[in-house]
Amino acid sequence: MAALRLLLTPGEPAGIGPDLVVELAQQAHAAELVAVADGGLLQRRADILGLKLKLVTIDPTARPAPLPAGSLGVIEIPLRRPERLGVLDVANAPYVLETLERATGLCLAGEAQAMVTAPVQKSVINEAGIPFSGHTEFLAERTGSKLPVMMLTAGQLRVALATTHLPLRAVPDAITSTLLRQVIRIIDHDLREHFGIDRPRLLVCGLNPHAGESGHLGREEIDVIIPTLQALRAEGLRIEGPLPADTVFTPRVLERGDAVLALYHDQGLTALKYAGFGQAVNVTLGLPIVRTSVDHGTALDLAGSGRAESGSLRAALDLAMELALDKSQRDSRI
Amino acid sequence: MAALRLLLTPGEPAGIGPDLVVELAQQAHAAELVAVADGGLLQRRADILGLKLKLVTIDPTARPAPLPAGSLGVIEIPLRRPERLGVLDVANAPYVLETLERATGLCLAGEAQAMVTAPVQKSVINEAGIPFSGHTEFLAERTGSKLPVMMLTAGQLRVALATTHLPLRAVPDAITSTLLRQVIRIIDHDLREHFGIDRPRLLVCGLNPHAGESGHLGREEIDVIIPTLQALRAEGLRIEGPLPADTVFTPRVLERGDAVLALYHDQGLTALKYAGFGQAVNVTLGLPIVRTSVDHGTALDLAGSGRAESGSLRAALDLAMELALDKSQRDSRI
Repeated sequence: MAALRLLLTPGEPAGIGPDLVVELAQQAHAAELVAVADGGLLQRRADILGLKLKLVTIDPTARPAPLPAGSLGVIEIPLRRPERLGVLDVANAPYVLETLERATGLCLAGEAQAMVTAPVQKSVINEAGIPFSGHTEFLAERTGSKLPVMMLTAGQLRVALATTHLPLRAVPDAITSTLLRQVIRIIDHDLREHFGIDRPRLLVCGLNPHAGESGHLGREEIDVIIPTLQALRAEGLRIEGPLPADTVFTPRVLERGDAVLALYHDQGLTALKYAGFGQAVNVTLGLPIVRTSVDHGTALDLAGSGRAESGSLRAALDLAMELALDKSQRDSRI
Repeated sequence: MAALRLLLTPGEPAGIGPDLVVELAQQAHAAELVAVADGGLLQRRADILGLKLKLVTIDPTARPAPLPAGSLGVIEIPLRRPERLGVLDVANAPYVLETLERATGLCLAGEAQAMVTAPVQKSVINEAGIPFSGHTEFLAERTGSKLPVMMLTAGQLRVALATTHLPLRAVPDAITSTLLRQVIRIIDHDLREHFGIDRPRLLVCGLNPHAGESGHLGREEIDVIIPTLQALRAEGLRIEGPLPADTVFTPRVLERGDAVLALYHDQGLTALKYAGFGQAVNVTLGLPIVRTSVDHGTALDLAGSGRAESGSLRAALDLAMELALDKSQRDSRI
C-alpha cells in the first residue's frame, strides 16, 4: 500500500499553530507529514521552543514517503511580513488564506490524501478586508460543496450538528425538513465512505426539552422532525429519534448509535467537550476531501511558550490518517 | 448530635419507586429512613423481589433513631386501590399526592429533615383531574416558595437551570434580567446555606453559541446577560460569565466554579447526564426544606423485575443526608 501524504496548515502565524506543528514533527509518523507554510516561521518557532526541526522541501507530484522523527515536509508559502509572537498582523491574512488554498488544491488534485488545520484568527482576516467566516465555509466553497456538516469526535463519541453558528433564537426556524434530510444523508454517506461503517445508526436529538414531550414542550418534533425521520427510515436509513438530548448522552443510549445528530451547537458540544478533555477533533463531512481540525483557538498568549497542548492536533492527525486510509483502501479496490 | 429523619416518597405505585425504596432499606443508614407510603405496597414489592423487609411504624413526634438493615420506617398513607405492576390507575393519583403532602408537611414542621422523592407519573395525575406539573412546582406551592430552582448534581459537578421545561423557541425571551437576578441569588444563598460553601463561585453560560461572540451570534449577552451579571458582581457575588457553554464543561473551567448556571434544559443537562452515568441527583433550590430526587422516570416495565437500578435514589439519599446535616449543624449553632 502506498504511503499517504497529510497536509498540515499551521493557521495564524502569531498563534500556537506553528508550535503544535513543530511538536508533532518530533515523532515519526506512518504518513508523510507536510506543512503548507512558511518554512522560516516553523524553523524560528522550533528554535524558540528549543526543538530540533529539519525541513524537507516536498515535490507534491512525487510519491509520498514518511519522514524520520525531527523532520517535517514543507510546501513553501512565504509570509508577507515576519511574524511576532502573539501579535496579529493584517498583512499576513493573505498568507493564511494562501496556505488553505494550496492545501485544498493539493487534496482535490489527489496529491495529498487529507488536510489537518490548526486555528486561524477570523477577525484579522476580516480586518484585512477578506470575507471569511471560517475554515468550514471556506473549504465548502473551494470544493464546490453545498452543505458542509460539522462533526466532532472524542474517542468513540461522534456528534454532528444540524446547525452551527446561529443565534439560539434562529434555531427553531432553521430546522426544516429539507435541512434535516440533507444533513442526515451526508452523515450517513460519510460514515459509510470515510469511517468504514456499513449501515450507520444515527441518534437524532429532539429540538425541545424531552423532545417536546408529545407536544407539551414545543411542536417542532410533531410538525417537522418526526415525519422527516419517518420518511428517511422508509428509505432504509437507520435512525432513532427524536430523542430527548439529555437521555441521548448516556451510555445505554450511546451504545445504540454510531453518531449523534444534535440540532444546534450547545445541545451537542457541551457533552462532547466534557467527554473530550481537550482531545476533541472537528471533522467536516460533505466535502470531497478529508479534512480534520483542532477544536481550540489560536491562543495568542501561549505562542512560543512551550505550554500549548498538542493533544487535539495529534488527535486530528490520527483521525485524518484513519479516514484517508479508509478512503484510499476503498479507492484502490475500485 | 441528634439523628436525622429522612423521608422517602416512593412515587407512582405501579412503577419502580417502591422497588428502589425496598432495596435501599436492605442496608443500615446513619439516619432514620422513613417511607411515606402504603406499607402493604412495600411489603408486596419486597416479596416479589425476594427481599426481606421489616416495616416499623414511626411516630413523627418522637426522636428519630436509625434502623437496622432490612428495616424501614413507615408513615402510613393507604392506597386507594391495590397496585398492579406496570399498570397506571387514576384511582391512586390522590394517594400519590397525599404522600407528597404529608412528607412536605413533616419537613416544614421540623419533624423530618429532608425528603427524597422517587418518580411520579405526571400524566395519570392529570388524568385524575388534578392539575400537577411536577414535584418541583408542587413543592414550591406547598412551601410558599416563589421560584424553585432545579439543580442537578453528579459527583462534584453541579448544574443549575435558569429555565427548565420550556419550548426552545420560548427560551430567549424568558431570560430576563429579573429572572437571572432571582435565580442567581437563590443559587448563591442555597450553596452557602445547604452546601456549606462560603463564597460560592458561579459559572454562567451564555445563551447563544460562543456566548454570542461579541454580538455576532445573538445580542442577548450584550443586552441582558452581561449588564445583569455586572450588577450582581458589584453586590459582591462571585460570578464568571457569560461563558460559551461548550467551554464551561471542560475541566479547566469547571475547576474555577462551585456550580454552573445553564440558561436552558439541554444546554445544562446533556453534559451533566453524560457525566452522571445514572448517578445524577436533582435537588430543588429556593425551598425552605431539603428535597432531592432521582433523575429518572417511573420505568413501568421494570417494576418488580429486580432490574431497576437504585444508583440515582441512593445518590439522592446521600445528598439529602449531607444537606440536612449541614443545615442541622448550622441550626444547632444558632
